[in-house]
Amino acid sequence: MTKRFVYDFGGKKSQGNAKMKKLLGGKGANLAEMTNLRIHVPPGFTITTEVCLYYYKHKRTLPKKLKADVKKSLRRVEMLLSRKFGNPRDPLLVSVRSGARRSMPGMMETVLNIGLTTKTIPGLIKQSGDERFVYDAYRRLIMMYSDVVMEKAAGIEPKDEKSAIRRQLEKIMDQMKREKGYSSDLDLSASDLKELCTRFKVRIKQVLKHDFPDDHHKQLWGGIGAVFASWNGKRAVSYRRIENIPDDWGTAVNVQAMVFGNMGIESATGVGFTRNPGNGENDFYGEYLINAQGEDVVAGIRTPAPINEYSKSDHNKDLMTLETAMPRIYKELNGHQKRLEKHYKDMQDIEFTIENGVLYMLQTRVGKRNGPAAVKMAMDMLKEELISKEEAVMRVTPQQLDELLHPMVDPKAEMAQKPIAKGLPAGPGGAAGQIVFTSSDAVAWTKQGKQVLLVREETNPEDVEGMRAAKAILTARGGMTSHAALVARGWGKCCIVGCGALCINYEKKEAEVAGKKYKEGDWITLNGTKGNVYEGKLPMMDSTEENVLLHKFLKVCDSLRRLDVRANADTPDDARRARSFGAQGIGLMRTEHMFYGKGTEEPLFRLRKMIVSNTPEERAQAVTELYPYVKKDIKGVLEAMDGLPVVMRLLDPPLHEFVPRERSALEQLAKELRISPEDLIKRADALHESNPMMGHRGVRLGITYPEITTMQVRAIFEAAAELIKEGKAPYPEIMVPVVAEAKELESQKEIVDRIYAEVLKKYKLKKIKHMYGTMIEIPRACIVADQIAQTVEFFSYGTNDLTQMGFGFSRDDVGGFLPDYINKGILPEDPFQSIDQSGIGELIKIGIERGRKTSPQLEIGICGEHGGEPRSVHFCHRVGMNYVSCSPFRVPIARLAAAQAVILYKSKKRTNRQARKKRSKKK
Amino acid sequence: MTKRFVYDFGGKKSQGNAKMKKLLGGKGANLAEMTNLRIHVPPGFTITTEVCLYYYKHKRTLPKKLKADVKKSLRRVEMLLSRKFGNPRDPLLVSVRSGARRSMPGMMETVLNIGLTTKTIPGLIKQSGDERFVYDAYRRLIMMYSDVVMEKAAGIEPKDEKSAIRRQLEKIMDQMKREKGYSSDLDLSASDLKELCTRFKVRIKQVLKHDFPDDHHKQLWGGIGAVFASWNGKRAVSYRRIENIPDDWGTAVNVQAMVFGNMGIESATGVGFTRNPGNGENDFYGEYLINAQGEDVVAGIRTPAPINEYSKSDHNKDLMTLETAMPRIYKELNGHQKRLEKHYKDMQDIEFTIENGVLYMLQTRVGKRNGPAAVKMAMDMLKEELISKEEAVMRVTPQQLDELLHPMVDPKAEMAQKPIAKGLPAGPGGAAGQIVFTSSDAVAWTKQGKQVLLVREETNPEDVEGMRAAKAILTARGGMTSHAALVARGWGKCCIVGCGALCINYEKKEAEVAGKKYKEGDWITLNGTKGNVYEGKLPMMDSTEENVLLHKFLKVCDSLRRLDVRANADTPDDARRARSFGAQGIGLMRTEHMFYGKGTEEPLFRLRKMIVSNTPEERAQAVTELYPYVKKDIKGVLEAMDGLPVVMRLLDPPLHEFVPRERSALEQLAKELRISPEDLIKRADALHESNPMMGHRGVRLGITYPEITTMQVRAIFEAAAELIKEGKAPYPEIMVPVVAEAKELESQKEIVDRIYAEVLKKYKLKKIKHMYGTMIEIPRACIVADQIAQTVEFFSYGTNDLTQMGFGFSRDDVGGFLPDYINKGILPEDPFQSIDQSGIGELIKIGIERGRKTSPQLEIGICGEHGGEPRSVHFCHRVGMNYVSCSPFRVPIARLAAAQAVILYKSKKRTNRQARKKRSKKK
Repeated sequence: MTKRFVYDFGGKKSQGNAKMKKLLGGKGANLAEMTNLRIHVPPGFTITTEVCLYYYKHKRTLPKKLKADVKKSLRRVEMLLSRKFGNPRDPLLVSVRSGARRSMPGMMETVLNIGLTTKTIPGLIKQSGDERFVYDAYRRLIMMYSDVVMEKAAGIEPKDEKSAIRRQLEKIMDQMKREKGYSSDLDLSASDLKELCTRFKVRIKQVLKHDFPDDHHKQLWGGIGAVFASWNGKRAVSYRRIENIPDDWGTAVNVQAMVFGNMGIESATGVGFTRNPGNGENDFYGEYLINAQGEDVVAGIRTPAPINEYSKSDHNKDLMTLETAMPRIYKELNGHQKRLEKHYKDMQDIEFTIENGVLYMLQTRVGKRNGPAAVKMAMDMLKEELISKEEAVMRVTPQQLDELLHPMVDPKAEMAQKPIAKGLPAGPGGAAGQIVFTSSDAVAWTKQGKQVLLVREETNPEDVEGMRAAKAILTARGGMTSHAALVARGWGKCCIVGCGALCINYEKKEAEVAGKKYKEGDWITLNGTKGNVYEGKLPMMDSTEENVLLHKFLKVCDSLRRLDVRANADTPDDARRARSFGAQGIGLMRTEHMFYGKGTEEPLFRLRKMIVSNTPEERAQAVTELYPYVKKDIKGVLEAMDGLPVVMRLLDPPLHEFVPRERSALEQLAKELRISPEDLIKRADALHESNPMMGHRGVRLGITYPEITTMQVRAIFEAAAELIKEGKAPYPEIMVPVVAEAKELESQKEIVDRIYAEVLKKYKLKKIKHMYGTMIEIPRACIVADQIAQTVEFFSYGTNDLTQMGFGFSRDDVGGFLPDYINKGILPEDPFQSIDQSGIGELIKIGIERGRKTSPQLEIGICGEHGGEPRSVHFCHRVGMNYVSCSPFRVPIARLAAAQAVILYKSKKRTNRQARKKRSKKK
Repeated sequence: MTKRFVYDFGGKKSQGNAKMKKLLGGKGANLAEMTNLRIHVPPGFTITTEVCLYYYKHKRTLPKKLKADVKKSLRRVEMLLSRKFGNPRDPLLVSVRSGARRSMPGMMETVLNIGLTTKTIPGLIKQSGDERFVYDAYRRLIMMYSDVVMEKAAGIEPKDEKSAIRRQLEKIMDQMKREKGYSSDLDLSASDLKELCTRFKVRIKQVLKHDFPDDHHKQLWGGIGAVFASWNGKRAVSYRRIENIPDDWGTAVNVQAMVFGNMGIESATGVGFTRNPGNGENDFYGEYLINAQGEDVVAGIRTPAPINEYSKSDHNKDLMTLETAMPRIYKELNGHQKRLEKHYKDMQDIEFTIENGVLYMLQTRVGKRNGPAAVKMAMDMLKEELISKEEAVMRVTPQQLDELLHPMVDPKAEMAQKPIAKGLPAGPGGAAGQIVFTSSDAVAWTKQGKQVLLVREETNPEDVEGMRAAKAILTARGGMTSHAALVARGWGKCCIVGCGALCINYEKKEAEVAGKKYKEGDWITLNGTKGNVYEGKLPMMDSTEENVLLHKFLKVCDSLRRLDVRANADTPDDARRARSFGAQGIGLMRTEHMFYGKGTEEPLFRLRKMIVSNTPEERAQAVTELYPYVKKDIKGVLEAMDGLPVVMRLLDPPLHEFVPRERSALEQLAKELRISPEDLIKRADALHESNPMMGHRGVRLGITYPEITTMQVRAIFEAAAELIKEGKAPYPEIMVPVVAEAKELESQKEIVDRIYAEVLKKYKLKKIKHMYGTMIEIPRACIVADQIAQTVEFFSYGTNDLTQMGFGFSRDDVGGFLPDYINKGILPEDPFQSIDQSGIGELIKIGIERGRKTSPQLEIGICGEHGGEPRSVHFCHRVGMNYVSCSPFRVPIARLAAAQAVILYKSKKRTNRQARKKRSKKK
């Protein structure tokens, strides 16, 4: 433990700096840094995070030495301000605030106005000349302190957000307002407030069995203890769980002199951004209020004024700017903001207070921004040579980039409305439309030029046409990897699934939500990024698909990344779209997915025929009939990706999903097979499996029915051969799915080699560029990857199934327990969303190590849903994959994440190297 | 490659010995060894297995040097016998036989009587004085040679077992017999046979387009080539697949002078065993025939005579013994057999021929024996100090031991009957009984003192009572791990599953097999070891459960093994039985299995109530009601195993299996829950999962419903506490199933610790000896075993589920592809039968390594079905587990396998050490 427990800031010199966030927390470190920059901040000191750790290690007690240190630092503040803490004539008031390494807004406690006692009140009244101000401050102190310090100390856990004592005090205040006939807190006079403080203290004594402390030191130490205690408060702990903040970081405590923006017309308070956080423009942007405290800006009772011309908007354009009202102060502030941005090399969010004509900076921190602003600022600062390429790339989060890729519900309109229901955000972006309840209605209405949202209990392959037609999809059941979610994400379509509040009546064509009925044709709006469902038609913001800056930004990313980025695409259209998003190939073409969507009646019918075939002859017939459709689709995709690799997965149909359910389809198929519909149902029933996920699928079908493999491989090679004859450069990579054992691949390789030779001969070609490889999605395949690598040239990780089987979690059934797992902290997050690095990731690493041991040149990629999830992309980079593949709309995000991975991993390696050096020096 | 291609044997000295099986094959090595022992064998020579490998490496050609070597060795044989190969006056005839390292009976080719040509026939007739004998030999040579050498060389693949040419020649022979009015081959005269040979040669020329070779050298080299070619014949290859014999062993070829036992009354042929192979008694046992050839003994046309008094039986007691007929020869033979057994230190199976008063030993090899004989011989030889303890233990195979543990169908009776159907041998042993088709009939008939077999489509938990009552179980569907198979094996009950030929009509209470109907009450007999179903009541052989020798033998095993052996048992009865079989604890008590079987109506009802509970209150109520039943069973098992550890698995019910199906049970449960049967069905439907194997089960239930864990843990500790108060020494090990993540175990541990403290307090105890551990059955658990080992004290591998998820094979659905996988050689065997060592085994090893890295003292065992399978037991030994656990009836087998593992692994380690030494010497 470091010797020093307390670090001073303010005045001319601080003892800390911005790099000491670990010890001083973000707030403390930045206050110290501003001091070092000669920027005027109210003086104070920071009690380090190490004291917090001490506090928890020693049964919630503080180190002995701390008292003396605090006393010393407090003396320094008194000297700087010529006021004394607890002095009746000219009292110093202080605030006590938390400050963790990373900001945890509102999660921990704050106490303001500490030092106000019956002894110091008269002095402050004299000093400020404003009795009401003083009693209002006292009233606030009592309310805050009794809640934050006293009730917590009494061990009373609040039932909800508000504490019991706060509730009671508010009731007393309301009662007084009623007695007096007041409508607002502002109506309370100085004497009212004085009386209120007395009533408060009586009630506190009754309820909490303790007097409100009338001693300034007692107040201060109570506040410090309360902040440390709040690190392990319920709210803070659960926030840390969500944000992955370690418990052993601890919080610092900042004790700072109070300054008041409500001391008269020479006083003010405000906030600002060094650039516009809404669009990224490089101009100082902010608001302020004369004669007000920080919380008044937030409370929204008065409309804040713009600080300068640039900050003017419709609702505040008539108010006087700070630049006009206090030109000297504005100039000083403007200098500060420029200096801070230049110093921190990023847009800053600043808070300031003007007390009697003196400007104090209260806070500076990196400002939050939306997606478009993030990209603009990054590219501008890069141009200004303020930051490097690496820094520019790190300035945009994947979530921010995502905002640029989808139409969005207008945030202002969204803020004004409450969602009628919530579901899982399965497909990002926003959409408004009229609801329909069947796939065919979705198609029909869309043909009439209407904008529809398809609402279903859940979807299945028969709904695909309607899903494609609809602007968005809403389902009552299913998880993030349900059919609807997978299909919608693949198309970049807005989609919300698992919206449990939805009760659908297909017969009546209506849905009920919380007692209200929504009929076919009613408008609703979805925010698929958040999972919110709104009544009515909300306005949209345009997507910036054609954003030039975005493309430039992505080029910067491309110049840094090592991972290739491919897309999962099943049709020529998807392939073309993927290419336009920058995909460097197709990482997964699901050959069976050609049976979803428009114009698929014929091939789907043939596929069904193949599936329910009972004899090799019937099957051979169906396979032959299927051949032309399969070849056409394959050729289309190969052509669209001309010159780039296309991984084609051999058939892995979830057979039972394709069996027809509608009577008419059943009858037609039965007729074709010359059997009765009842016999057909029997055949379909025979396909039933107890655990289809681990059943007769993937390569297992290829082994039992080699004719299916033969047909597909022939389609791939003949399509490629035809394209070569047409002067194109097709590059198929043939991928065998669901492999558990090397011999499975040897068996399928025999077919591939045989058909390859046949096709070369038929088309009189010397060579068709291609690769033979496998999907690694079965745990055993990772274990025997060394053997598997003897037969194949590439691995592609199917992390969806690998997660299912590695965890033993059926993704269709996890709904029963996964929410509990995450709530109880047993798993940090849904492993189907982001790769479980310690478990499934280890399996992946074992597979890569073993595979590359046999074959160092092995091409390795990922084609699971995780391929477009940023942290998973970082993982793929770290374990040395060659590429990631994701849905076309995720390609830009993967490009960004792949570039960020390079930077993150480099700095991590550097840190590790430094740590090693340190260790070896110690030795 | 060694320089020498040919090794001589016979005469006074051989160039090989018994240790050279790798090079000379078993037959050749033993012929050489007998020569070295001065035992008279027909002289000859062995062409090594390396020549076979050369043959396949060099496009089926032989090394050039071989011709000269063979010539030289042939010259030696001619010298020893004073006959000459191809000499018209006194011709030498030879046989050409295969001989691989391990015996592959009947899988490769043999040609006898080589050297008979039109030139040498007269000489042999003169020598033997028996024209008929010579032409019969010639006839045999032609038939054998045209089939084995000529047709194969022509590249004609036989349609079935018999070749086309052989079929045709047999037809010609039959035709001749018809022409002459003969009923037997023996009726054919010398001139008939001569004529027959002529006809044969004509037909051969017609069909195979080649003359039958009339040159002795051509015959010899044709035969040698045919033997080498037969190594890769269809039959041999598929036999090697089954027996796991590597392709690169190759076969040797033995060329040996022919001797004839059919040269008159001074000639004979016979076989013998140095001890009785049927019961193990230490007496020379054998049969012989005067004036006969080896194949005559096999053909069964004449009844062989006993060689001595001891070998007499009912059917041959009136025939003259060899001892009486040829006392000098018998004495010599008896000396040989004694010498051979002493030399080989094992019971020998010998073949001999007497040619004109001269005894030749043709073969000696380790003799096959049945289970009781194997144990008796091992124990006798150990007593005689002929072999060591290690050798004694290696002398009994697990299969032989298994024979001693179950009643068996009398092998003689079985041989006389053809099975009416075949199924999978799910529960070993034999049983005869009257068939019934329902569980309740099985119970009722058994109460009436009848012996019944329960016949079902497949079984489910509702059938358990009837399964217990029945002598054996026969199902039409299901695999080796179906419900019926699992339950039956657990009880050591005879069971055949997946008997596809069976067509059951429950209404009519009859089953149809191949067109024949079997009604309720009809007798059938099952051989559950082989999977055979017989009509009628076949006699049984008594089990030797109380065999003293067996127990002694197992004690010898115990003195060698390192692995402990526990049993899987769910009831006090099973536990007691397990203990009597030598179990050193219970490795798996499935707490939910108390709901199967007799007298379970009440607890099963409570369990069902818990399962379909909809609210925490309902569930809590059901759990409370269940408590006394759970505690009673647990206490019973702990008491039965007093002093020994009992692993208790917390609830892992396959929920949907327990939901009632019968209307009456449904109605009763609905009434109890005060809901309608329809609502109950709805609740049950809600439990439906797409992939229940990977659904809401095991610890996942414990996390979502902690009250279930709490109830069970309390039952365990209170049962233990009560037993301690009664002066017993209970030792529960609490096991959490289906764990994928360390935090799951931490969460359940909190409950265990809390309840433990409560129970100690309630019973005023200081300590209850117990352990907390987990089942490792999810692939991810192996990967994060280091983290898991921080919370638990033991691992128990659940290899059934680990195999399912590691392979992605649902064991309920593998029927669709696993047979193809094994037929096509993609998997060597069913991984649910024997641990897949290269894949799942690797996962197990990773788990052990990581677990022990955290916690070197971790107790590790296995409780899957594999725990009683010998090769899996060897694996468990090798990877350093502490114990295996299996069904009570497999405990003796596991004890044997564990001892054999020590011996095998030691010798393997020794071999590795030697190999390393050799390598380092080379360097």
